[in-house]
Amino acid sequence: MKQVKVGIIGFGTVGAGVAECLLKNGELLAARTGVKPVLAAVADLDITTDRGVALPAGVLTQEVNRVLEDPAIEIVVELVGGTTVAKEFILRALRAGKAVVTANKALLAKFGGELFAAAEKGGADLYYEASVGGGIPIIKALREGLAANRFHAIIGILNGTCNYILTRMEQEGAPFAEVLKAAQAAGYAEANPALDVDGIDTAHKATILASLAFGEWFRLEQMHVEGIREVALQDIQYAATLGYRIKLLAIIREAGGQVQLRVHPALIPARSLLGTVDGVFNAVLVNGEPVGTTLYYGRGAGRDATASAVVADILDVGRNLAGGSRRRIPAFRHHRAFQDVLPASEIRSRYYLRFQVQDRPGVLALIAGVFGQHSISIASVTQKEAAAPSVPIVILTHEAREADMQAALAELRGFEEVTEKPVLLRIEELP
Amino acid sequence: MKQVKVGIIGFGTVGAGVAECLLKNGELLAARTGVKPVLAAVADLDITTDRGVALPAGVLTQEVNRVLEDPAIEIVVELVGGTTVAKEFILRALRAGKAVVTANKALLAKFGGELFAAAEKGGADLYYEASVGGGIPIIKALREGLAANRFHAIIGILNGTCNYILTRMEQEGAPFAEVLKAAQAAGYAEANPALDVDGIDTAHKATILASLAFGEWFRLEQMHVEGIREVALQDIQYAATLGYRIKLLAIIREAGGQVQLRVHPALIPARSLLGTVDGVFNAVLVNGEPVGTTLYYGRGAGRDATASAVVADILDVGRNLAGGSRRRIPAFRHHRAFQDVLPASEIRSRYYLRFQVQDRPGVLALIAGVFGQHSISIASVTQKEAAAPSVPIVILTHEAREADMQAALAELRGFEEVTEKPVLLRIEELP
Repeated sequence: MKQVKVGIIGFGTVGAGVAECLLKNGELLAARTGVKPVLAAVADLDITTDRGVALPAGVLTQEVNRVLEDPAIEIVVELVGGTTVAKEFILRALRAGKAVVTANKALLAKFGGELFAAAEKGGADLYYEASVGGGIPIIKALREGLAANRFHAIIGILNGTCNYILTRMEQEGAPFAEVLKAAQAAGYAEANPALDVDGIDTAHKATILASLAFGEWFRLEQMHVEGIREVALQDIQYAATLGYRIKLLAIIREAGGQVQLRVHPALIPARSLLGTVDGVFNAVLVNGEPVGTTLYYGRGAGRDATASAVVADILDVGRNLAGGSRRRIPAFRHHRAFQDVLPASEIRSRYYLRFQVQDRPGVLALIAGVFGQHSISIASVTQKEAAAPSVPIVILTHEAREADMQAALAELRGFEEVTEKPVLLRIEELP
Repeated sequence: MKQVKVGIIGFGTVGAGVAECLLKNGELLAARTGVKPVLAAVADLDITTDRGVALPAGVLTQEVNRVLEDPAIEIVVELVGGTTVAKEFILRALRAGKAVVTANKALLAKFGGELFAAAEKGGADLYYEASVGGGIPIIKALREGLAANRFHAIIGILNGTCNYILTRMEQEGAPFAEVLKAAQAAGYAEANPALDVDGIDTAHKATILASLAFGEWFRLEQMHVEGIREVALQDIQYAATLGYRIKLLAIIREAGGQVQLRVHPALIPARSLLGTVDGVFNAVLVNGEPVGTTLYYGRGAGRDATASAVVADILDVGRNLAGGSRRRIPAFRHHRAFQDVLPASEIRSRYYLRFQVQDRPGVLALIAGVFGQHSISIASVTQKEAAAPSVPIVILTHEAREADMQAALAELRGFEEVTEKPVLLRIEELP
C-alpha cells in the first residue's frame, strides 16, 4: 500500500479538522482507496492553543520549513488563508514538485494564473475542492462527474453567513443589522463581515466555478457584485406573500456564447429546491446539456465539512502519486467555451420593485407610464390600503433589460410622488 | 492530445444519447479534458430504426465483434441491458484488457463479483456511474468526493417511475392503478412495470451504493424490499395533512457497526429537500462523518441524463489511459467497514398506521392496549367523525422495533373490531 506523507500549514479550525479526520478515519481511508495518508507535520506559529486534536508527538511545529523542505512530504495542505504568506508557501511547495491542497478561494480568485503556472512548471498537482461549497464536491462535479456537458447555468447559494442571516431575518421578522449582530455573537459571522455580506466571498467562489465551466480564469472585476446589506425585512416579507424567498445567489449563465457573471440577492420560488436551502447550508444548481438540471447541497463551511473536502483532495492526489499519474487533472485547463462576458447592463431579468409613493391618484399611472416608455412590462402590482401619507407599491415585471430598468428608475426618482429611493431586486428564473 | 477509440454495444435510447453527446460535444470535451473520445463503432442487431443521430459512415454495424475484437478500441460501452449477453460482452472486453463503461445495474447487482474479478485479471477499468441516479454523479461522490467520510446514512429516491407515480397520485388525487396506466401510456412506465413498482430496480441501485459505502458487495437478498403497489391514495392524503409525503426510498443506514439495507415507501417531511423531489427526478441524501448531510439531485433516467454519466465515465477512463493510470480506481475495492447487516425485524423506526375499525366505544383503547403490551408508544391519533359503520383511525407511533410492530399487528388482526388489514408505513427521520 502506497503511503503518502502529508504536511499541513495552518493549525486553525480547518487544520484541526483535517488532522482529526486523517487520524480518526485513516485506516478506513487506506482500506477504501489503497492509499494511506500519513500526517507527518503540522506547522503553525501558535503551537500552544488547544485545538481539541491530539497530534502524535513531534508532528506539531513552528517551523514551516519542516513541511516545505522535507523531501518525504509529498502533499502540502495550505490552510493559512489570506493572499500573502499563503501564496508564498504554495509557490514554494509547487516549485519543489510537491502537490498542494488548499481551501483558499480568495487566493485562487486573485492569483490563480500564477499558481497554475507554478504547478505546471513543477509538474505538481494543485487541488482546491474545499474552496467552494465546503463539503459539497462541486468542483469535482464540474471537472469530472458532469464533464460531458455544455454548461448553461450554475446558480449557487455559496455563502453560509449570508444565507444564515437571510433565513433568520425571515424566521424572526428581524432587520439585517440586528440579525448580523446576533450572528456575530454566535460565531456565524466575522467581526468584520464585509467579505461575506458584501458578496465578495460569494464572488470569489463564483469566479472559480465559472472559470472551470467555461475554460477561462475569470477575474473578480468581471463579475457584477451586490451584497445583502440593503435587503430590507419588508422585502423579505413581501416576497414571502408572493411565493418567493430572497437568497444571495451566484449566477453564472450562458446563452448564445454570452456568459453572465453576477452575484446579487434575488427572489426565487419558495417551493423550489434552492428556495428550501436554509441557514448555513449551501447549494449549487447546475444545468447542462445533456444532463439537464442537477443540484448539490451540503454545509458550505466549518471545520468538518471543509475537512471532508480537503481530505478528499489528499486522497485524489494520493491516488495520482500511487498510480504515477500526477497532473491527471491539471489545476486549470484553458479551453474558452464562450464568446463574451455580457455586460451587466445588457442582462435581462424579471424584477421586483418597491416604491414608496404619495397616496394620491395617478401615481401608479405615472410609474406604469415611465416603465412603458422604457419597454418594461408590468406583471403584477400589490398596493395595500394605508392611512399614511405615503404608501408602498410592490411591482413585479416581466423580463426587461437591466439598462432600461435603471433608466426608468433614474427617471422616476425625479418625481416628487416617489418619496424614497425605489428598491430593486431581481427575480431569478430557475432552470 | 490523446485520442481514445470508443465502441458502443447497444444503439437504443441511451446508446443514441451517448453517440450524440460524443459527436456534438466532442471538441469541447477534448479541450476541457485533454482526451479526445472518438466514436469508432456502434453495434446493434437493429441498424435500420432511425435513432435521430447521424453516425459517421461505417460506424454502425451488426457485428458486435467489430467492437470486441478491434484492438484499436480501448473503451467498450455496454448498453444492451439484461443479464445474459451483456455479461458475455463485458467479460470478453475486460479479458481483452479493454475498459468497460456500463449502465447495467441489474447485471452489477447480480454478477458484480464476477465482473470485478475479470476486470482485475484483465488489468482493465470497469466504470458504472450511469447505473445509479442517471445524471447524478453519486458513485463518484461516494468513491472520491466524499471518500474521506465514514458513512452513516444514504437515503435515496432512486426510481423515477415510482416517484412520478406517487407525485401524480398526490397531485391528481388518483389511485395507483389509474396513474400507472397513464404513466405507461406516456412512456414513463414499462408495459411490465414490476421491476420498477415492486422496488427491484431501486434495490439494485441501493445494493450498489451500499456496497461502495461499506466495502462489501452486498446481494439483493440481503435487502428488505417493498414496492409501491400497496400505497393507497388515502394514505398519501392523510400523510399530506400531517405534513408528510410518501416516497419510495432506498435506506442504507449504519449505527454501531450494524448496517440496515432496505427499500420501502416511507413518510418524510413534506418540507424537507427529499420531500420536495417530484416527478421523474431522483435524489440521494448522504450523511457522513465529517461532512454531515449532503444531497445530490437530478434526472434519474432517460436518454440525456444517462448519456451524461456514460460520457463522464468515458472521459474518466480516457484520462486513465492517457496518464497510464489504468485501475486508478478499481471497479470495487473490498474493505469491510461494518460488522453485520441488521435483520429487518430488528430495525427501529417510527410508524404510520391506518386501521379501519368498527365505530363503537373502546376500539381505540383496544389498539392502544395491544400496542402498550408490545412496547409501542403512540405519538398521535387522528380519527374523523363519520356516519359509516366502520371508520379509519390514523396513528403515528414513536420509535418502535419492527418485530414488536408486526407482532402487535398480527394480534390486532384477530379482533373483529378491526375490519380490514391495517396499513403500515414507516416514517423515516432524515439526518
